[in-house]
Amino acid sequence: MSLEKNNTPINNHTKHRHLKLGLFGFGCVGQGLYHVLDETPGIKAEIKRICVKHRNKTRPLPASLFTFNATEILTDPDIDVVVELIDDADAAFEIVKTALRNGKAVVTANKKMLAEHLEEIYQLQQQYGKPVLYEGSVCGSIPILRNLEEYYDNDLLAGIEGIFNGSTNYILTKVFEEKTSYADALKKAQELGFAESDPSLDVQGFDAKFKLVIAITHTFGVFVKPEDVINIGIDRISDLDLKFARDNRYAIKLIARAFKIENRVFGFVAPQFVESAHPLYAVRNEYNAVQVQSAFAEQQLFVGKGAGSYPTGSAVLSDISALTYDYQYEYKKLHQLHDLSFSNRLTVEAFVSFDQSTKISISDFEQFESGYASHGKQYMVGKVGLEKLNAWSKLEGVGIILAPNATLVPQTETVKTKQTILV
Amino acid sequence: MSLEKNNTPINNHTKHRHLKLGLFGFGCVGQGLYHVLDETPGIKAEIKRICVKHRNKTRPLPASLFTFNATEILTDPDIDVVVELIDDADAAFEIVKTALRNGKAVVTANKKMLAEHLEEIYQLQQQYGKPVLYEGSVCGSIPILRNLEEYYDNDLLAGIEGIFNGSTNYILTKVFEEKTSYADALKKAQELGFAESDPSLDVQGFDAKFKLVIAITHTFGVFVKPEDVINIGIDRISDLDLKFARDNRYAIKLIARAFKIENRVFGFVAPQFVESAHPLYAVRNEYNAVQVQSAFAEQQLFVGKGAGSYPTGSAVLSDISALTYDYQYEYKKLHQLHDLSFSNRLTVEAFVSFDQSTKISISDFEQFESGYASHGKQYMVGKVGLEKLNAWSKLEGVGIILAPNATLVPQTETVKTKQTILV
Repeated sequence: MSLEKNNTPINNHTKHRHLKLGLFGFGCVGQGLYHVLDETPGIKAEIKRICVKHRNKTRPLPASLFTFNATEILTDPDIDVVVELIDDADAAFEIVKTALRNGKAVVTANKKMLAEHLEEIYQLQQQYGKPVLYEGSVCGSIPILRNLEEYYDNDLLAGIEGIFNGSTNYILTKVFEEKTSYADALKKAQELGFAESDPSLDVQGFDAKFKLVIAITHTFGVFVKPEDVINIGIDRISDLDLKFARDNRYAIKLIARAFKIENRVFGFVAPQFVESAHPLYAVRNEYNAVQVQSAFAEQQLFVGKGAGSYPTGSAVLSDISALTYDYQYEYKKLHQLHDLSFSNRLTVEAFVSFDQSTKISISDFEQFESGYASHGKQYMVGKVGLEKLNAWSKLEGVGIILAPNATLVPQTETVKTKQTILV
Repeated sequence: MSLEKNNTPINNHTKHRHLKLGLFGFGCVGQGLYHVLDETPGIKAEIKRICVKHRNKTRPLPASLFTFNATEILTDPDIDVVVELIDDADAAFEIVKTALRNGKAVVTANKKMLAEHLEEIYQLQQQYGKPVLYEGSVCGSIPILRNLEEYYDNDLLAGIEGIFNGSTNYILTKVFEEKTSYADALKKAQELGFAESDPSLDVQGFDAKFKLVIAITHTFGVFVKPEDVINIGIDRISDLDLKFARDNRYAIKLIARAFKIENRVFGFVAPQFVESAHPLYAVRNEYNAVQVQSAFAEQQLFVGKGAGSYPTGSAVLSDISALTYDYQYEYKKLHQLHDLSFSNRLTVEAFVSFDQSTKISISDFEQFESGYASHGKQYMVGKVGLEKLNAWSKLEGVGIILAPNATLVPQTETVKTKQTILV
């Protein structure tokens, strides 16, 4: 099994395929992709057909490029790659399945669909021998999946954490730097195209969670269901929380994280107070960041735009470009350490703010640290089970923010039972 | 020219080759590679033989693994990949040439050798059809070359800049944060293995320049000779400069940068005052960082360890791993825009400090901004030609540091002639 010994010259220009693309969706990212592709003559790929939903929209391209019938793309033998860029996760999954079955490679940036069906999509790739690439689904322009794939063994990565959602980071930046109100900052984010059509996906942490679920597979080689991963959003953050942060010169960041301790993988999304020395403190506006903790390369930080049509379009284009040289995710870590499992049995250090009528008491904390009351609000700081924190986050008027450099301690299984009874 | 339509299952495990490696050098990086490889069972590669120079050193591996005869590796038909990790750039180039000629792929982290011979190494790859990979040569653990290769067209990248040398960044961090003396900080950096055997390569900016020369080829598709690129080091920075930085809450960073304006590529290495809002301000100790300015992904920042045996070993390993799936640099941008040329005709905004006996006057500046004198030293701030700055930097007692957010303005050809006469 050695490299071929014949001296064939490296010829990059004939090696690559010229790809014909069938596009689904022509919204923000689809149009971004169109422009990026148009201005990147070095990539040998062209859009043959675009499938759209609304018949009566005016579009900036010749009508002949568009179709309203998915089958026209999915059964066209001339089309090599289906690029799926629609909002509807269920419809997107049907497109992906049919495309693979029909022998087409797929590029998608649909994080909800991917998070919900990643294991099945992995199986379908094995079954039909065609790749699905989705760099654009996690942190926009940051080439994080491609870089995670570079780590062969799941023991090489201890954890990843970062700012996975551009619109909440934009809102949190504006709220702090320009003392804008929450509502105004959200409106501005939507106007700029950073926020999803349903802002609750952003502000409640679902969007970041979907991306985390995808990243967990490429980091640790396990599949996790989104419903098993806890997401605490920034929608319950109160003026008192903001004041506390300002008084202490903290920023608040919505942080997605996953890490491995022994044979358990932990992961969740929650807001956190962040000190100025923290690498994520300086990540502002719609920028995303991912910090990778690896055995040999140690700390690595990737920062880039996580939202917007061009950054996401450019990530989608990098997948298309990768298909011209037969790149595929290898999911190498899936074949290792089969006893790894995902767990929420974690004790987390958090600030909890709530109305004085809410039934949260010192004894609810595994380790209570401090507390105070002011303006009808109570504030408690201490170590508490992640699942209990999650339950609290559903209560009206409860704000939850992780402590700066919060300690995160896995619980034993005994604590698990106790915890379940308590909540 | 479409993707194959047959449904062959993706099988990642039989697809990859098991590689046999012949290693040259067993110093810091070589030993790092050995350990990283040993602890990464997922990579199908093994070291068959290690060629070393000194016969009498005690080594932590069986003597049978070592040889003192390069030919034993270079002519061994069983060895697929030559991993070159020696200090001597000339000897390294001979190894690379012979290895390619003998049909072996090459992995190297020798930035001096690469910077001096990159065009020839490119030609040799074309001629013999075997790849040379060198991710470890630029910014250690940061996968910057791999990521630059993702940008197909040289119009897509406006510029790159960053901290390309870990030991000077370590020294500058210690000097500021711990108020260590320059000499102590250098000594500490060498003890920790961050500094090269010849520290002048680091502190005079040569090491950063070699990396910049390599990065320029992968960013803009032009070959540049290291002797044509100006490097101003940190070795002439005075206590007065340090005091000025502290008084203004600046950090000093040794910054390598390259950018394209119309059909000219500019690039140089020089110390710069950096404000706290600058993305490179927070990059501390032996960390490196590269900021990429691209058309669609916009600003991207990569931060990671730039020195040390494990981070560099892990970058070398990622090249070895890439060879198992036939990865090669495509140098795509070399085939575009043939009229691009490298230039030093640039006006730069800088702080210049010098003894009062040194003949530098206000009229030497294209645009003088301010100046003062104290303790026998003079300080002038203004816009000045890069080549003149470089000439000044060779004078005893002259310290040069770029202004924070220094303006960098290309000169017209008329100015070029004028400039040459003046210097």
